[in-house]
Amino acid sequence: MGDNGVANEGSQARPTHWLKLTVAYDGAAYAGWQWQPSEPTVQGVLQDAWRSITHEEPCFTASGRTDAGVHAEGQVVGVETTSTIEPRRLLRGLNALLPDDVVIRAVEPAPVGFHATHDALRKTYRYQVLSGPVPPLFDRKHVWHWRAGQLDTERMGQGGAYLVGRHDFASLESTGSERSSTVRTITDLTVTSRPADGGERIDITVTGDGFLYNMVRTIAGTLVEVGRGAKPPEWVAEVLASRDRGRAGQTAPPQGLFLVRVEYA
Amino acid sequence: MGDNGVANEGSQARPTHWLKLTVAYDGAAYAGWQWQPSEPTVQGVLQDAWRSITHEEPCFTASGRTDAGVHAEGQVVGVETTSTIEPRRLLRGLNALLPDDVVIRAVEPAPVGFHATHDALRKTYRYQVLSGPVPPLFDRKHVWHWRAGQLDTERMGQGGAYLVGRHDFASLESTGSERSSTVRTITDLTVTSRPADGGERIDITVTGDGFLYNMVRTIAGTLVEVGRGAKPPEWVAEVLASRDRGRAGQTAPPQGLFLVRVEYA
Repeated sequence: MGDNGVANEGSQARPTHWLKLTVAYDGAAYAGWQWQPSEPTVQGVLQDAWRSITHEEPCFTASGRTDAGVHAEGQVVGVETTSTIEPRRLLRGLNALLPDDVVIRAVEPAPVGFHATHDALRKTYRYQVLSGPVPPLFDRKHVWHWRAGQLDTERMGQGGAYLVGRHDFASLESTGSERSSTVRTITDLTVTSRPADGGERIDITVTGDGFLYNMVRTIAGTLVEVGRGAKPPEWVAEVLASRDRGRAGQTAPPQGLFLVRVEYA
Repeated sequence: MGDNGVANEGSQARPTHWLKLTVAYDGAAYAGWQWQPSEPTVQGVLQDAWRSITHEEPCFTASGRTDAGVHAEGQVVGVETTSTIEPRRLLRGLNALLPDDVVIRAVEPAPVGFHATHDALRKTYRYQVLSGPVPPLFDRKHVWHWRAGQLDTERMGQGGAYLVGRHDFASLESTGSERSSTVRTITDLTVTSRPADGGERIDITVTGDGFLYNMVRTIAGTLVEVGRGAKPPEWVAEVLASRDRGRAGQTAPPQGLFLVRVEYA
């Protein structure tokens, strides 16, 4: 690591250290976090800014890849660097170069070998639904607009309670992913609502030690089935026990999903 | 009115009636409410949609003109029409044709001769400030980013209290406007704060029977002077009494301003 010959040319003796970046982004204009050769990505614009400031080719680790259209309030990115620019100045310099839909919220020293993916202990996601007959406006790129009648948030909360705990979440994972285990622990799941943007804003907030592919979006689609009255809250327990993706609700669209925060030791 | 020969050709006998439209818009992409020949305006896109649906050339009245970049949650628009399309279907049809940053929230029958400007009794505006060192993200086009230190919202509220009541607001009006009187009544002014979007969101909400040009933005700029500690709350009373625009704070930028609601008899 840090030995790529570009950054270190003529400076082999400079010690490396690790930094933890907290990054927020509006994912509307991006093909997701992960760098792609011909699509705008969050990693791509962050790498460009990093290169301009440190003259290093960065090797970022991220707490997880977010999909196209998904947002982050607190994505965590790790990087090994020889740069001696102090964190406060790095933060200001990066924000000055980044487009206005990507913002660095914090730059902090991290332990030796910090890896944002492997070291993550807990993650919190929020899925935002806007229920109402007229389209959302100010949040139109940040919610799933549900126009097919009222959603009962109390029932959604009751259904969600069945997901809290250590379970095999195979029925709530998008097919095609390759994970050795589909067992995860959800430590907290809440459903709240309030009037907003011409309708009722429903937030599903989930904290867990890890999430399968599209798991939060499938939880949202499943709880909406309960909220609209198509299924009773207990049905969520049946879906979970079945381990059959075909039993769950739809995968809710990406633009309602926010990576809120990632916790480390 | 309603006799323009286009809509009524061959149908002179059709009775006209008045409708009240409640319109929300994200003003970021518009040169304001009022139609202009070569700039995108909210009135312009609304006229286009109206024409497509009713085949009438509309003559809209609005509660007031909002400037470039200013937003509305509840702009009120009046229109005289011979269209017999029922309000619910008009609402859906207009929303289907409008760009996604303009949304009709309601279409209702209005009294004969309804005029959205002259008949307005009370208006409420909200001015949004985001105070904090890092730039706002999700609300970046909907706040004034204040990065020059903390704002004391309790002091801002104390300063704002001096504005409530019937006063000559000449010192809080942008120069160059031509009004016969600069006396207005503010019935309510509140300053609230909460954590949001990486900083502290401060909302200044003002209700009154009418507002002079740039008055809410000048109130915001003036209360920020108090909030940052440059002036004591009592200074707001001095500014008001002076009737001198040069004494007040800066005119806060347009993107933080929202027309929240307009009340009629």
